[in-house]
Amino acid sequence: MRKVAVIGVGNSKFGVRNDVNIAELAFEAVKPSFEDAGITPKDVEFAAIGTVGAGAWSEELLPAVVVGEYCGLINAGLLRCEAACASGSAAFQTAYSTVASGQAEMAMAIGVEKMRETDTPTTMEWIGRAGYYLWEFHNFGLTFPAYYALYANAHMAKYGTTEEDLALVAVKNHKYASMNPVAHLQKRITVDDVLSSIVVAWPLKLYDSCPITDGAASIILASEEKVRELKIDTPVWVAGIGFAPGTANLSKRKDYVGLEASVKASQRAYKAAGVTQKKIEVAEVHDCFTIAEIMAYEDIGLCSKGEAAKLIREGLTEIGGKIAVNIDGGLKAKGHPIGATGCSMIYELTKQLREEADERGRQAPLKNYVALAHNVGGTGHYCYVTILRR
Amino acid sequence: MRKVAVIGVGNSKFGVRNDVNIAELAFEAVKPSFEDAGITPKDVEFAAIGTVGAGAWSEELLPAVVVGEYCGLINAGLLRCEAACASGSAAFQTAYSTVASGQAEMAMAIGVEKMRETDTPTTMEWIGRAGYYLWEFHNFGLTFPAYYALYANAHMAKYGTTEEDLALVAVKNHKYASMNPVAHLQKRITVDDVLSSIVVAWPLKLYDSCPITDGAASIILASEEKVRELKIDTPVWVAGIGFAPGTANLSKRKDYVGLEASVKASQRAYKAAGVTQKKIEVAEVHDCFTIAEIMAYEDIGLCSKGEAAKLIREGLTEIGGKIAVNIDGGLKAKGHPIGATGCSMIYELTKQLREEADERGRQAPLKNYVALAHNVGGTGHYCYVTILRR
Repeated sequence: MRKVAVIGVGNSKFGVRNDVNIAELAFEAVKPSFEDAGITPKDVEFAAIGTVGAGAWSEELLPAVVVGEYCGLINAGLLRCEAACASGSAAFQTAYSTVASGQAEMAMAIGVEKMRETDTPTTMEWIGRAGYYLWEFHNFGLTFPAYYALYANAHMAKYGTTEEDLALVAVKNHKYASMNPVAHLQKRITVDDVLSSIVVAWPLKLYDSCPITDGAASIILASEEKVRELKIDTPVWVAGIGFAPGTANLSKRKDYVGLEASVKASQRAYKAAGVTQKKIEVAEVHDCFTIAEIMAYEDIGLCSKGEAAKLIREGLTEIGGKIAVNIDGGLKAKGHPIGATGCSMIYELTKQLREEADERGRQAPLKNYVALAHNVGGTGHYCYVTILRR
Repeated sequence: MRKVAVIGVGNSKFGVRNDVNIAELAFEAVKPSFEDAGITPKDVEFAAIGTVGAGAWSEELLPAVVVGEYCGLINAGLLRCEAACASGSAAFQTAYSTVASGQAEMAMAIGVEKMRETDTPTTMEWIGRAGYYLWEFHNFGLTFPAYYALYANAHMAKYGTTEEDLALVAVKNHKYASMNPVAHLQKRITVDDVLSSIVVAWPLKLYDSCPITDGAASIILASEEKVRELKIDTPVWVAGIGFAPGTANLSKRKDYVGLEASVKASQRAYKAAGVTQKKIEVAEVHDCFTIAEIMAYEDIGLCSKGEAAKLIREGLTEIGGKIAVNIDGGLKAKGHPIGATGCSMIYELTKQLREEADERGRQAPLKNYVALAHNVGGTGHYCYVTILRR
């Protein structure tokens, strides 16, 4: 397998972005990624666009070529990748594979999503379809927060995880978002704020839930040869990627206290990268709801099953703790433009591994220089785990 | 780059398939592909699903995991690939890259599309969006046939291609579809039938246009090591893939007599495969309209620019001619379920290269055992060219 590095990254401002269309929003991330890598759009041979709501949230049904044209990708083979909320990671994996297999020297993954122009009920319906529409959404009426609420209830019942523990995840992630200029929700909150917020699907409340966000992120990948040729100072190497599915119907799952897709994908990623969980110093995990971050700690092996609440209670996933998790604010507070999230995770980890994330004290201390991105589609319907190494 | 082979293929019956939902339709192609390869669903580590109209033509907005679950892919990392009418080829390229890069030993590409349950105007609107919706469809009102009619007019004006030449493409492809049990339109037609059919967008008439079709195709790919381990008799090797984009806006194209994406993608594929056009003995080209096949002959180098009409007039693209093109009926008569088409091309070429296509005399004579699939998304917005070799 050829070595492949991240050589350029960009991230748009996340938030309510009715000021731009989907191509303009993508460009806000793409332009800085080209400047970062020191290349031009025509140098890119392949581009994978991660976006979900084409034709629903954006008027462009087939957005890859529209984004490609607007960003000047005149030589890049194009496609759109969709794996629900893991679409950005699927695009990253596709672009990575194209370089790693020798089909291109440089490729890029662009994640972009505009979710705010549509009315909220329609947006919520589309997100709710990220399971098995025919059975569980359409027939039984489960909304997307309700899927995760099932898991939260089961986790609380089995392991004694509390509503306060969930709230602590939100408090941590809001704190870091307040230190991150690209984040959607830049205000600190308290445990009381979370507990007193409106119930969405018990035990999950408004502040246990990520916002509906517009945003884009862009990642440029290059082969080892091209890294040398371009004299890239701080390439961030893709050490390994793991991927795994979950059942479409949640009713077919064997339990509701963790996501099997996360377990399998992370194990495959550790194996591919040849590292153990202990080496990871900074991680982005998929916290669309606070319970999702709790389960992720356990599923990717940061602690034993049932022990995640302890990590968050003791502050072990803060900067300076055992491992820094979601110190960009996470989906929970940085925001979750679903097609962009996977690429935005890689953006953040690249900045961390290059030690360029010190804005307002957000740099994680590093010794091993190994980072992990964990991106879930749906309720564990898809999972991609990416390990990066400087 | 690791060598990768096609080891199993399947194709559903193409046509009006209101008898099945999208997962059931996919399964009709997936099941025979597993039987063909002699493996089970759990052996597959990665699966790329090519489908376009999720949420529009099918109730499943995020169909990859639904198809995956129904087909038993319990270990396969999943994503959906979309590149308009080249989505099947994009899925094939993604699955190929994942094996070629060493991330999986076995992967599959499943193309599936259900287009017939929706009313025709809605389906036509969605197809029409396969350009730049914001400008050319929404503002100027161009439908999808009108895009190709622009090209047909320009080609006729510049090179003297006639309506009769276009009709000959339809006559040829209907003839072969009549010999292909999976084809949607299994009736032979005459030049007069074509010329007297209703005008869709002059000079393109009803019989110059492919039908709106439901269908699925499935391809299983394996590494060289796995091919040996499984003792596959007739692996069909992926010799090379080329990809290229076109502008989103047709108004930015430099001419209207060919698709630049096809030229670039085919040149890249020939280079990657290390073969010249002369070696190709059987080809599938993208004939969504008859003019598209004419342009493809020229764009992929089967003849010089402006000479395609001669090939069709002289029967040189029939079985026994210079090169056998679309001898499964093509998009024109086998049908064009847009997400499935790219995989269905690989299905047909695999059967041809294995010399298993002799049903009703459809086997092309082979000496070099080299085949080419040319799949266009939109009006040259995307192009993937895949070269296979036995």
